[in-house]
Amino acid sequence: MEGNVVTELDHRMGELKLLGVWPSPYVYRIIWALELKDKKYEYVEGEFHNPDFTDLLLKYNPVYKKVPVLLVDGKPIAESTVILEYIEETWPQPPLLPQDPCEKAVARFWVSFAEEKSTSFMSFFVTVGEEFQKATQEVREVLKVLEETIGDKKYFGGEEIGLLDINLGWIALSFGVIEDIVGVKVLVADDFPRLFTWIQNFREHPSIRTHLPSHHELFAYYKKKREAIIPSNTA
Amino acid sequence: MEGNVVTELDHRMGELKLLGVWPSPYVYRIIWALELKDKKYEYVEGEFHNPDFTDLLLKYNPVYKKVPVLLVDGKPIAESTVILEYIEETWPQPPLLPQDPCEKAVARFWVSFAEEKSTSFMSFFVTVGEEFQKATQEVREVLKVLEETIGDKKYFGGEEIGLLDINLGWIALSFGVIEDIVGVKVLVADDFPRLFTWIQNFREHPSIRTHLPSHHELFAYYKKKREAIIPSNTA
Repeated sequence: MEGNVVTELDHRMGELKLLGVWPSPYVYRIIWALELKDKKYEYVEGEFHNPDFTDLLLKYNPVYKKVPVLLVDGKPIAESTVILEYIEETWPQPPLLPQDPCEKAVARFWVSFAEEKSTSFMSFFVTVGEEFQKATQEVREVLKVLEETIGDKKYFGGEEIGLLDINLGWIALSFGVIEDIVGVKVLVADDFPRLFTWIQNFREHPSIRTHLPSHHELFAYYKKKREAIIPSNTA
Repeated sequence: MEGNVVTELDHRMGELKLLGVWPSPYVYRIIWALELKDKKYEYVEGEFHNPDFTDLLLKYNPVYKKVPVLLVDGKPIAESTVILEYIEETWPQPPLLPQDPCEKAVARFWVSFAEEKSTSFMSFFVTVGEEFQKATQEVREVLKVLEETIGDKKYFGGEEIGLLDINLGWIALSFGVIEDIVGVKVLVADDFPRLFTWIQNFREHPSIRTHLPSHHELFAYYKKKREAIIPSNTA
């Protein structure tokens, strides 16, 4: 994956551009979905402290000034969950959601659950002491629910990757790295055998495996990020 | 609207039942959407402290044990935003979302924004002192964005009520009551003339106006609720 920072974007009909910042898991959601749908797109990578990129975000996502933003013929779509629904609706094959409306609602329910519970994982990453103990317990509870939800399926979506897999993909992407930095392993094979296998299945999928940064790169990134939040003498 | 607490629910094909608790704004979202779509449904009203109703929620929404739950031929759908998407997809007329995929994504973006920012309104209701000042400022900022978003349209959806109107309907339902209880008016006609008019338009819509509790009833409910959270000597 390569990208160029630009200050002005040209747009042609039928063209897709994805504004991203490495290694945002929200951006990866869109990359994975577009790869699964076999859609061509131009990846425009920026950095938040680059004023040109900030200008782009101000132009295309003025409410949040965040990535990802998907530009369709120059029209911006923001918020990863919203972009994913757009992708699914516009290019239905291969499907990320079940066809049956009730089953589709169940899939969206779990996406909503995963979104809501992601704050516990964030706390696990950025807190210490009692707060950290509480966050760890919460993460464990969420993983228990997910372990039960995936059951004996290869993916949350069944035989193929679905919307919930993409939504939870950040666990396969970076939670192992985050555990290594924090120094506490929660998602271990003994406690969560099905999720553990799911991480492997997800990472090995042909559309995903070529779009995963290395453990080494992520470790350096998240370690620096955590040290900026938690002074090392308290961690 | 009338409802009966039941411990077991019969289900017939094609039948809709809505589990609700008065006066949950999340439940009203579903009532309004079903009324707009002119769908027949049975409203099953419960109370959270009623063990029979708790059993029903445990059965139909075991993850959250919350209302609303929509039962379609006995199959439960939970989470108001998920239920609304189900309703829109299953009964497309009259539409709550634009047909154009990009415009639909924009509508969903604003729904996501409204969901995220609702926490500021909650803080406005349950905090005092500095926290309250901060929440009031946040509420004002959110209202400014919404005032700009509705522009000169009758509803957020345009000439007709759309998904964002339903999502924000709780502002038309109860924010005035909450302001009265808190003792601070924020959403006033001078500062937010378009939102002020929208509240009137929304409340007067034929599908909405017969499904709005009275100011008096809501005042008593929310006053009691706030007093349970904030001891009166600190408020």
